[in-house]
Amino acid sequence: MGGILKGADAIVQTLIESGVEVCFGNPGTSEMYLVAALDRYPELRGVLCLFEGVATGAADGYGRMAGRPAATLLHLGPGLGNGLANLHNARRAGTPVLNVVGDHSMEHKVLDSPGDSDIDAIAGSVSAWVCRPADTPSLGRDVAEAAGATMGAQSFTGRCTGTSGAVATVIVRADLSWSEGGVPADPVPAQPAQCGPRDSVPVVEKVLRSGESVALLLDGDALTARGLYAADRIAQVTGARMYCPTWPARLRRGAGVPVVTPLAYRGEDVAIQMDGVRHLILAGARPPVATYGYPGKSGELTPPGVRIHVLAEEFVSSTDSLLELAELLASEVDPRLAARARPELPKGVLTRDNWAWVVGGLLPEDAIVCDESITAGLGTLSAATAGAPAHDVLGLVGLALGQGLPLAVGAAIACPNRSVICLVGDGGAMYTPSALWTHAHEGLDITTVVLNNRSYAILREELNRVGGRPGGRDSGRMLDLTQPELDFVSLSEGMGVPASRATTAEELAEQFVAALARRGPHLIEAVLAAE
Amino acid sequence: MGGILKGADAIVQTLIESGVEVCFGNPGTSEMYLVAALDRYPELRGVLCLFEGVATGAADGYGRMAGRPAATLLHLGPGLGNGLANLHNARRAGTPVLNVVGDHSMEHKVLDSPGDSDIDAIAGSVSAWVCRPADTPSLGRDVAEAAGATMGAQSFTGRCTGTSGAVATVIVRADLSWSEGGVPADPVPAQPAQCGPRDSVPVVEKVLRSGESVALLLDGDALTARGLYAADRIAQVTGARMYCPTWPARLRRGAGVPVVTPLAYRGEDVAIQMDGVRHLILAGARPPVATYGYPGKSGELTPPGVRIHVLAEEFVSSTDSLLELAELLASEVDPRLAARARPELPKGVLTRDNWAWVVGGLLPEDAIVCDESITAGLGTLSAATAGAPAHDVLGLVGLALGQGLPLAVGAAIACPNRSVICLVGDGGAMYTPSALWTHAHEGLDITTVVLNNRSYAILREELNRVGGRPGGRDSGRMLDLTQPELDFVSLSEGMGVPASRATTAEELAEQFVAALARRGPHLIEAVLAAE
Repeated sequence: MGGILKGADAIVQTLIESGVEVCFGNPGTSEMYLVAALDRYPELRGVLCLFEGVATGAADGYGRMAGRPAATLLHLGPGLGNGLANLHNARRAGTPVLNVVGDHSMEHKVLDSPGDSDIDAIAGSVSAWVCRPADTPSLGRDVAEAAGATMGAQSFTGRCTGTSGAVATVIVRADLSWSEGGVPADPVPAQPAQCGPRDSVPVVEKVLRSGESVALLLDGDALTARGLYAADRIAQVTGARMYCPTWPARLRRGAGVPVVTPLAYRGEDVAIQMDGVRHLILAGARPPVATYGYPGKSGELTPPGVRIHVLAEEFVSSTDSLLELAELLASEVDPRLAARARPELPKGVLTRDNWAWVVGGLLPEDAIVCDESITAGLGTLSAATAGAPAHDVLGLVGLALGQGLPLAVGAAIACPNRSVICLVGDGGAMYTPSALWTHAHEGLDITTVVLNNRSYAILREELNRVGGRPGGRDSGRMLDLTQPELDFVSLSEGMGVPASRATTAEELAEQFVAALARRGPHLIEAVLAAE
Repeated sequence: MGGILKGADAIVQTLIESGVEVCFGNPGTSEMYLVAALDRYPELRGVLCLFEGVATGAADGYGRMAGRPAATLLHLGPGLGNGLANLHNARRAGTPVLNVVGDHSMEHKVLDSPGDSDIDAIAGSVSAWVCRPADTPSLGRDVAEAAGATMGAQSFTGRCTGTSGAVATVIVRADLSWSEGGVPADPVPAQPAQCGPRDSVPVVEKVLRSGESVALLLDGDALTARGLYAADRIAQVTGARMYCPTWPARLRRGAGVPVVTPLAYRGEDVAIQMDGVRHLILAGARPPVATYGYPGKSGELTPPGVRIHVLAEEFVSSTDSLLELAELLASEVDPRLAARARPELPKGVLTRDNWAWVVGGLLPEDAIVCDESITAGLGTLSAATAGAPAHDVLGLVGLALGQGLPLAVGAAIACPNRSVICLVGDGGAMYTPSALWTHAHEGLDITTVVLNNRSYAILREELNRVGGRPGGRDSGRMLDLTQPELDFVSLSEGMGVPASRATTAEELAEQFVAALARRGPHLIEAVLAAE
């Protein structure tokens, strides 16, 4: 205690000791001591983002692929606010993310200066763990505890974060950073959380042996290759159906991996999918709910009469239990693996229906697909890439737009030797476009395909559902991204990412192949013809 | 009660009754009923923004110029989060803004579906007034009260919002919007707030007559022409100095308007400015504080020994009191008005020191200047435009970057017959670039000048102040916007705004004249040579 180490150095040293290797930052004045400290520790890589939503989305992408947290460095309440939507997505995905938010010095706080606001309230809305170190000697310990909290320690809200990750936020006053007396702390191991009641393996085994129709809903580590192998062996001998969320946080799929069916986006379609099911076994998953409520429709998508059994709740590991069940039920059975089957490349004008088959036909080995294609990908992307080489898909769990381009940053930095494919709608791309600059600045191997349908297509569908008139004076205009049309080639080149435009399937294929052949980022604007 | 009017219609009708004419929206599914309702009421103009920070910044610009609130339409917690930084700026500027944030339906809330989060906590961090209507019949009344609250009603936090404006947020569950039973409500008049203790006009008069050195710190409506006329008459006969904040919410200045000196950005320089002052009279202003705290430096910028007198506190009108004082002290005196004096246009390579003189030499009559030029404008913009035709300047009160481009949207919509000049740094422009699309979509008469110094120059200065090494491996990189260099011409054209690049003062002048001669938006990238 009371040594000569500056607080900022104690923070950075503790981050490094805790296994944090990357810091995605959009710093301001209150973080200058941390920026200066970064300079002294080459083990912690600073990655500049031009907007906080890029930093937090990148940390989400990094955490999903690396399985451990990146840090973010954010400036005061407004900076945290700008990062909030992608922290929401990270929270919903169960991603470990460690936010370091700078605050004014103690003496300055009482002045309510212009940049001041209630950081704690904002942080609390997305974090399983928030702390505000009291003095410089506490910084190391608090940062170590926060890092531990991202890895599944019991959250202070009481929510189970199991073995999955969580968002933790440390709010650091500038005076603690600039003062001497910092004490780096040892890593705090993740604490297994107290989770809710679950059904034992023998109970679930009995359900699976009952002869009644069973569905497995898989999420979390059940969607790794290991989890899917086990689940598929169970499914083979019991006839159980295998589902996963529409857009899971991370899913292994493609050739050599067992097939799992994503739940449909619309509740009505889920009811059709689940028709006849009597038992739903949750493996690291939550009971399915609709994205939105509608008049007179239930948001609970588990059909009436279906009994739910919890092998492992959301954010809790289920692979060991699945493996145990597989050994009990199907010890002699090998998993069915999807065959390698490249679809034939489509031809002609690009549409919502054919673009995904180009991606499926050309997807490289072991790619990471950041999927924010939403309406443009629903119903086609999954089918089109089913026989492509095995790959990971990272989905829009929290439904806050602007995830795709930043997520790709983090995935590419976590896995520098893998190709990252970023699929994003025109609407979503405009929330966090400056991520493209970081693609270029860091020379990341990301191929972005912007699916430009020139509208908020998903909202047009929703407007139809509530009986609005898409041709109306204002409501139609409010969902229309023409006048002027966005030129993503120009936007991308303006941020240093080489770009091209495709209006036919042939052009998309040619440009996709060329982009993959070169290292570094490329953007393809795929203009989808109106249907 | 219990009529057939839908809740969404009651909201829109009440907004119109309350004088709200514009709704800046980035809606989602939970707001589709409101989007559909907008269709039925042409009196309320819907303006689409591609990112919520654009919608909230536009509402701030609109409110500052119109003096009454625009509505925003935002989607759930993440949407409000994306809008938070510019709501922070609006709160600090005392701007009336009325947020309508959609939430899930009651039945859906309990499911904790993927888009769900603690909207109330996020809203509370920026709003003087938050309400969550309990049922459909309450919607009209609650919206009317929120609209009243934006116009200076006593805030629920107890903070005085005086006669200035405030941010109010109504969180509307989708089921209340879609249900019948809506009851439009009459406008709720703004309630004069209970403010803190203030010094009476006779007390302040005595100070001004004391013969001791006095400074007036003017803000709020003291910075209108009327306020400045009165203050200047007082200053003439008493020798009082006239100051305003570095970046006030709205300031009238230029030819025909009395001159007020902005306080310096750096605390050290404020001490020099205020040297010799014995009394500081606050007219709609708060005591000056530094933007950030530094080790061993006081954040309070009122020099020791200076007595503070409150004619009107922040967010409270002071013009009547100033006028009363002017009549008491200087009944025969006319205000000194700045002479019309166009600076000579500079020549040669553009630098931080000469660009502002081009703007000053060419600023059109009655322009609105949205100023987020920060370091590029400090010390020069004010001098360079002092003799330009009278204009309004809207400053970065809350210091959250990304204000300029959205603010211009709202200012241009509030004042369609005035030229809007948007001055923005390269760093700031990358927070909310999609505002440019709305410039084009709405055909707004905005001339944007991006001051591209290819770095976070303000942070480089701050890093120097804390003893960091700008050449360091990471800290330098964290503040450097090169590799690749941003091409704002390409970015702008990609969003439909015609653009050009200037590297000399002559080019800037030529392009500025051309942009002003045409209606509609234009962007000039002013590349500032390294110094």
